[in-house]
Amino acid sequence: MAEKKNKAEESLKDIVALAKRRGFVYPGSDIYGGLSNTFDYGPYGSELMRNIKNAWWKAFVHDRDDVVGLDSSILLHPDVWKASGHVDSFTDPLFDCKACKSRFRADKFLEDALGVDGSKLDLAAIREVMEKEKDKLKCPNCGAKDFTEPRQFNLMFETKMGAAAGSDQTVYLRPETAQGIFINFKNIVDTCRVRVPFGVAQIGKSFRNEIVARQFVFRTREFEQMEMEYFCKPGTQKEWFDFWVDYCVKWLHGLGIKQDSLRVRAHEPEELAFYSEGTVDIEFNFPFGWGELWGIASRTDYDLRQHMEFSRKNLEYLDPETKEKYVPYVVEPALGVNRLFLAILSDAYRVEHAGTEEQRVVLSLHPSLAPVKAGIFPLTKKDGLPEIGEALYKSLSKVFPVDYDLSGSIGKRYYRQDELGTPYCITIDHQTKEDNTVTLRERDSTKQERISLDKVRDFLIDHVNGV
Amino acid sequence: MAEKKNKAEESLKDIVALAKRRGFVYPGSDIYGGLSNTFDYGPYGSELMRNIKNAWWKAFVHDRDDVVGLDSSILLHPDVWKASGHVDSFTDPLFDCKACKSRFRADKFLEDALGVDGSKLDLAAIREVMEKEKDKLKCPNCGAKDFTEPRQFNLMFETKMGAAAGSDQTVYLRPETAQGIFINFKNIVDTCRVRVPFGVAQIGKSFRNEIVARQFVFRTREFEQMEMEYFCKPGTQKEWFDFWVDYCVKWLHGLGIKQDSLRVRAHEPEELAFYSEGTVDIEFNFPFGWGELWGIASRTDYDLRQHMEFSRKNLEYLDPETKEKYVPYVVEPALGVNRLFLAILSDAYRVEHAGTEEQRVVLSLHPSLAPVKAGIFPLTKKDGLPEIGEALYKSLSKVFPVDYDLSGSIGKRYYRQDELGTPYCITIDHQTKEDNTVTLRERDSTKQERISLDKVRDFLIDHVNGV
Repeated sequence: MAEKKNKAEESLKDIVALAKRRGFVYPGSDIYGGLSNTFDYGPYGSELMRNIKNAWWKAFVHDRDDVVGLDSSILLHPDVWKASGHVDSFTDPLFDCKACKSRFRADKFLEDALGVDGSKLDLAAIREVMEKEKDKLKCPNCGAKDFTEPRQFNLMFETKMGAAAGSDQTVYLRPETAQGIFINFKNIVDTCRVRVPFGVAQIGKSFRNEIVARQFVFRTREFEQMEMEYFCKPGTQKEWFDFWVDYCVKWLHGLGIKQDSLRVRAHEPEELAFYSEGTVDIEFNFPFGWGELWGIASRTDYDLRQHMEFSRKNLEYLDPETKEKYVPYVVEPALGVNRLFLAILSDAYRVEHAGTEEQRVVLSLHPSLAPVKAGIFPLTKKDGLPEIGEALYKSLSKVFPVDYDLSGSIGKRYYRQDELGTPYCITIDHQTKEDNTVTLRERDSTKQERISLDKVRDFLIDHVNGV
Repeated sequence: MAEKKNKAEESLKDIVALAKRRGFVYPGSDIYGGLSNTFDYGPYGSELMRNIKNAWWKAFVHDRDDVVGLDSSILLHPDVWKASGHVDSFTDPLFDCKACKSRFRADKFLEDALGVDGSKLDLAAIREVMEKEKDKLKCPNCGAKDFTEPRQFNLMFETKMGAAAGSDQTVYLRPETAQGIFINFKNIVDTCRVRVPFGVAQIGKSFRNEIVARQFVFRTREFEQMEMEYFCKPGTQKEWFDFWVDYCVKWLHGLGIKQDSLRVRAHEPEELAFYSEGTVDIEFNFPFGWGELWGIASRTDYDLRQHMEFSRKNLEYLDPETKEKYVPYVVEPALGVNRLFLAILSDAYRVEHAGTEEQRVVLSLHPSLAPVKAGIFPLTKKDGLPEIGEALYKSLSKVFPVDYDLSGSIGKRYYRQDELGTPYCITIDHQTKEDNTVTLRERDSTKQERISLDKVRDFLIDHVNGV
């Protein structure tokens, strides 16, 4: 068991190292010693992020005639978060070590220290357990046994927005993109000729001031979400819920994620939020174990009704055909971009011939997600081969990102591209000048074939685009 | 003069109204009475935003073999903002009306009230002028003549990030994306095989707690930037500066912005930041007058040197061929997405046959920017025409967003798409069943021609893609 954990940690460490070494992900504010749990996406990482987001937008907006997009503000009216319940109850129970000032999530701490089920403890129960078991509770950082009282801390980041003296308004960085969709429901219905059932999809940053476990980009205080709210007629929500769970799983597999890296786990009734009729997590087998990748929730009409009450605006939908009036029910598939990024990276990562001289690290990324679509390698720097390579580079780079590489042995150049997940490499050699063919090498199989130079572009367009 | 101002305001009002009516831009937190100066981009607006950002990314990253992308955090280490000078001097002089608590920017206030050049006044001078002219200074909101002392207010939004008791760290929402690039300079050089000269480009949200003029999305507290830092060898910066000014202007015209809507204005020496060797604003003729669209600045090695000093990391570049070591100079083209969005919308907006029954409002958007690429209209709901329309819809929507519309007269359906900026509309009528042709109508000329149904897709791919 211990060995297994170490192996898993090892594998995450390898992925983190590759991510930094090859310009996917750098520690945030690196030259200043880092800012706890923030990350910057480098040249290749930012392309992979873009490709993931574009693939999602295509599948959830452009390919669907029943879904439209939205881009709402990060800063919303504070009443939005009162209505949604985030002001009152978006909290974690925390306490601090009085000696070294480390801060802990009380529920997780008691789980680890005592093996109790922390999720079942409210603040009173946590206090009781801490009092009763105080001899057993020791700070894992400094060993002291002296803790503050546990308290509820709100996870929203607060800031002040000032346009008038003394009335600086407290606003919050949104902890989810979903509420930006709910508060625009009426505007969208009034202006965009949508008809229930329809969805509104959004990609954007959210912020939660969490006490964070160290799992790379799995859980960070600043993160990006891809959320969709699907509005449907009461009574049809079960059908749409099943539809979207299936749609999401299929989409993930379509991105190349392995069958056995995913599992679907329905929440137990006691895990559900009080307004939820059902929630399913699509879980991914991360290097540190199974973790939530995608939450799909049947949220009833809870959110729209809350906003009706707090805003005093009527958010009922009038069916133009049946003339029925109702508040739609909502199914919400909510996915973190950074978490999917990590899932894709770790699912694609593998080491072949480990330890040998021929060792190669490969990112078997789906071609449509790969940051670079092809590497172009003239065999030598002379005999006119670079000129052919440059012309091919120009022609291909009009369509998608490609790398041009003249340095080192062809083997080394292949391995460099393998680590980036580049699906194809093209070598221009002396035979090219004779018969106008090049070597095309496929990343995963390493199989090479000769192909006519003027067919390369069409071949790649057919093989690296779309999901 | 007064009349002119009113006309300009009228035209901005029309654009704001269209933006809301047709799902481009809604007031932020609308159902809660709005949150001052925030905006949400609706289904069509979010598509236009995406198209603008994708066009920029293509021109500034994918089409250039000397530029790479980045996606750095919004939350950066607070020392980044000390090094950059934002903690000490990213301020506006403000004072408040003691009676009604309205807050004003002192320099702008004195400009409006007394006609002095506010940009030349430091805080001491502002105090002096306010004291001397106090009888002339009246609150424009309530008429009172009682103001607080002017003070410098920092424009950065502050928040607390907490992982340890008592040491909640004050962090800032970034006021620009540029610094995220500078602090990653070394990581990118070390991991991405770039060679000076090269650029790093980034798109992302920034935040400034400004006292905001009401000019729609022109200046907002939350906004999105498209910034590039181009690192070059000292001595070559003038050449690169001229290159990028030219490149940016051409790109804007390539997006369809009219020649006389743009002008290039070099900053006067006294306008320049002390480290700047030269700054040019590309200005756009907004409905409220000429305003900055794009700032292109020659920033010398100021930023990298500041970060060297504050981080104590060596950010020199070693030229692999000449073995020279130097700190690169930087040219920075920095553009606001929302501002370009407004420029594109107002440049494209026009009313034809105003006041007549045939009046139509047209958004002459460049086809590659248009949220919807084609409208598909079966003439009637029977005789098999909808079936042909649906098949065409399916075939086209695989490639780009299209609208399918069955309701109202063809004229009304055209006008609906004209307001959205849809470049082409396709009508399926009874002749379609006889000879397999449809009517293709171009938005700007309203010219109609018959075209073979099976040529529609290729025609549109050739006419609506790419910039």
